[in-house]
Amino acid sequence: VPMSSTELEAALGAAAEASRRWGRLPAADRARALRRIADALDQAGHDLVPLAQRETQLPAPRLRGELARTTFQLRLFARELDGGACHGVIVDRADPDWPTGPRPELRRMLIPLGPVAVFAASNFPFAFSVAGGDTAAALAAGCPVVLKAHPGHPQLSDRTGEIVSTALAASGAPEGTFAVVHGVSEGRELVLNPRIRAVAFTGSHTGGRALFDLAVSRPDPIPFYGELGSLNPVFVTERAARARGAEIAAGYVDSYTLGAGQFCTKPGLLLVPSTSDITERAVASVLARSAAPLLNARISAGYASTLATLTEHDAIDVLVAGVMGEDGPTPTLLSTSVSALLAHRDVLLAECFGPTSLVVHYASERELLDVAAEIEGQLTATVHGDDHDEIVPPLLEELVERAGRVLWNGWPTGVSVTPAMHHGGPYPATTSVLHTSVGTEAIRRFLRPVVFQNMPTRLLPEPLRTPPVA
Amino acid sequence: VPMSSTELEAALGAAAEASRRWGRLPAADRARALRRIADALDQAGHDLVPLAQRETQLPAPRLRGELARTTFQLRLFARELDGGACHGVIVDRADPDWPTGPRPELRRMLIPLGPVAVFAASNFPFAFSVAGGDTAAALAAGCPVVLKAHPGHPQLSDRTGEIVSTALAASGAPEGTFAVVHGVSEGRELVLNPRIRAVAFTGSHTGGRALFDLAVSRPDPIPFYGELGSLNPVFVTERAARARGAEIAAGYVDSYTLGAGQFCTKPGLLLVPSTSDITERAVASVLARSAAPLLNARISAGYASTLATLTEHDAIDVLVAGVMGEDGPTPTLLSTSVSALLAHRDVLLAECFGPTSLVVHYASERELLDVAAEIEGQLTATVHGDDHDEIVPPLLEELVERAGRVLWNGWPTGVSVTPAMHHGGPYPATTSVLHTSVGTEAIRRFLRPVVFQNMPTRLLPEPLRTPPVA
Repeated sequence: VPMSSTELEAALGAAAEASRRWGRLPAADRARALRRIADALDQAGHDLVPLAQRETQLPAPRLRGELARTTFQLRLFARELDGGACHGVIVDRADPDWPTGPRPELRRMLIPLGPVAVFAASNFPFAFSVAGGDTAAALAAGCPVVLKAHPGHPQLSDRTGEIVSTALAASGAPEGTFAVVHGVSEGRELVLNPRIRAVAFTGSHTGGRALFDLAVSRPDPIPFYGELGSLNPVFVTERAARARGAEIAAGYVDSYTLGAGQFCTKPGLLLVPSTSDITERAVASVLARSAAPLLNARISAGYASTLATLTEHDAIDVLVAGVMGEDGPTPTLLSTSVSALLAHRDVLLAECFGPTSLVVHYASERELLDVAAEIEGQLTATVHGDDHDEIVPPLLEELVERAGRVLWNGWPTGVSVTPAMHHGGPYPATTSVLHTSVGTEAIRRFLRPVVFQNMPTRLLPEPLRTPPVA
Repeated sequence: VPMSSTELEAALGAAAEASRRWGRLPAADRARALRRIADALDQAGHDLVPLAQRETQLPAPRLRGELARTTFQLRLFARELDGGACHGVIVDRADPDWPTGPRPELRRMLIPLGPVAVFAASNFPFAFSVAGGDTAAALAAGCPVVLKAHPGHPQLSDRTGEIVSTALAASGAPEGTFAVVHGVSEGRELVLNPRIRAVAFTGSHTGGRALFDLAVSRPDPIPFYGELGSLNPVFVTERAARARGAEIAAGYVDSYTLGAGQFCTKPGLLLVPSTSDITERAVASVLARSAAPLLNARISAGYASTLATLTEHDAIDVLVAGVMGEDGPTPTLLSTSVSALLAHRDVLLAECFGPTSLVVHYASERELLDVAAEIEGQLTATVHGDDHDEIVPPLLEELVERAGRVLWNGWPTGVSVTPAMHHGGPYPATTSVLHTSVGTEAIRRFLRPVVFQNMPTRLLPEPLRTPPVA
């Protein structure tokens, strides 16, 4: 249900109104509010999970796990606030003998940007949605959130939004600290509204780039933190293929079919030696998989269309043709050669959101470098190898240039929620070099530095009153 | 002298070629190279200062001081590299019992973005030019620099560039780590060239916004760190005006006429009680000032034109009309009221680059809040007050929202080069919330995070091999 302009305007006005009070609450108070949201969501699980299941077709165990991840994430940011590291304090004491002339006392900290528009994702109705990572990070930073719900789970969004708002109110947060809005044109209005000071987005490349273009077209451009997806290539060396072919084939099929392939970290490309049995083993594994429903009709249609472009392409061999049934599609497996991949990179190196992946056969390990040099920015890149493989150092050198996370002998799905995690990468994986939507550094996106020069202690913000001097 | 396309292409190709080698040098080696550049510039002072003087009309003592500041800045970044904090290492050890499922080992660090285009400023031929803060920060980060020289000091730019290149070569930096280019269309080409991974710019709002628009229009948008200037309002409370009127008047005139008013931190607006003698004292001080030449003919023309718009405006009283002579203009002092300022904010709240400033008379201290609420993003905002003034806390609350540096009983010119310094602010002061072109955090602009998952120690970049675990 799209909102009226008046309702949208009211939500934005309330967010602007709430901004300073929420932003200036002691970090410990915001931490308490985040924990209260987490507790309330945990308690509402029996209500939220069935609702999510109805709207997204995702299985209940997965949804319960995702809700647990979401509340853990809120508590992780609360812990980050407890520590105070989020203030990024740097202090220079006054120094009359500083080499470039007398130095004043400078006390620097990070302060919130103001109201943030968060666009929820379709594929994580909890963890990247109403009370997901971007919301947790923005609220932790001290920014009110106006949440643009994903049309794939509108009722769940409203219900989650009520729980968040109630918990915030009970924690003493000002009214307007959080609101849920619906509608495509409403989303565009948010990005252009002068009260919105930053945008966080998880979704398609097309939608994300269009909103990015709006954000930077403003009279006052604002940061747009967009996560637009990824192909997540996996490179298997000859030695790894020989030593662990069965394990790699199984891990690969598990990873690309997980959640019906609806993850931005799905391995969409697997490079294996043409002589290896990995392909054969993967085919056998894929044939044994059953159908799993896609999130909604729009995603099904998008999947069918992208998949058709691939399966009908001359350069593609269809190893397993998935079948679309009542319970959704069974997985598809495609293959090609390195030379065909590079000759048709525009089509074959595109993300296909759903349970399909492309095995690429190489004749020589040197070809791994040719592929690595051609891929665009990625959330992840993975190498399966032996740490004495000669190809590995130059391959890692290429991959580090192109990915935000580089994995060794693992699989990119199942992003661990932990401080060091980075979920971002060079464009087009994300639109900002500062982007991460997992890991506590995500909070940094919604803060900016301010330095106070020779300010009396009692006029300083609390975090700057007694900090250590560097 | 604009370059040929072939020369520009060669410089970009060499920068791309140098990028990985420079970026992967141990930080200590880059620190050594920065120190060698600083030493070489210090030694060439007798040569560079007269050249700068000829091209910019700035007095020799100021230029010598600026050169010292520039080489200090290079050494400050070198020291930052020594400490290793620039790597931003975060490590999560593997944890099979992590609440959201077994956690892999994650080692995260910051890596360089790749070649950076730096646009030099007119008004700091050393400190914000060829070997200035942006160059020092980008080189420290591990990014090659293609420097777009300012047309106001082309020979100095080439000579400084030679010294930088020679010092880099002698330090073992790869060829292509640094180059100087000239020309307006060449600058645009840089911003659009796929090899350039970030832009740092100091200059006018018009020029900066045009280049920002190009940077974000690319198929792969890149960060644009633009510093586009500032009005730097100064708010004087009634009590401060009574207690320290003479001191404030003298400090104000010193600050706004320093360097012939050609600083982005020049106080362009001074708010004083209408009953105060500060205005009268400032007039007397301004009348005693002599002429100082502007940087070049283009800046003179721009100053004359903006000043004419102000002096001819109905809402403006001309307190002291500067005279343009052979030695440049004498300072101008203007005044208006708060109500006139707010009624004509579009014209009166614009930056005028040169030795002029606007005194705004208020009838009641509450009007300070009205003005504070209307100003756009600023590099600095200053309060002269008594720390028991009731107006001060709400005034600071407004100013923190709008400025990157908030000063107490001081003057914004003379930006100290020190770790905590922040030289940036909300748009239009700067185009990025991450922006600072002074202070060691400036290095962060040219880095992005990468996390390594379960990577064997010998395959990790050196800074991640034995870091402390969080």
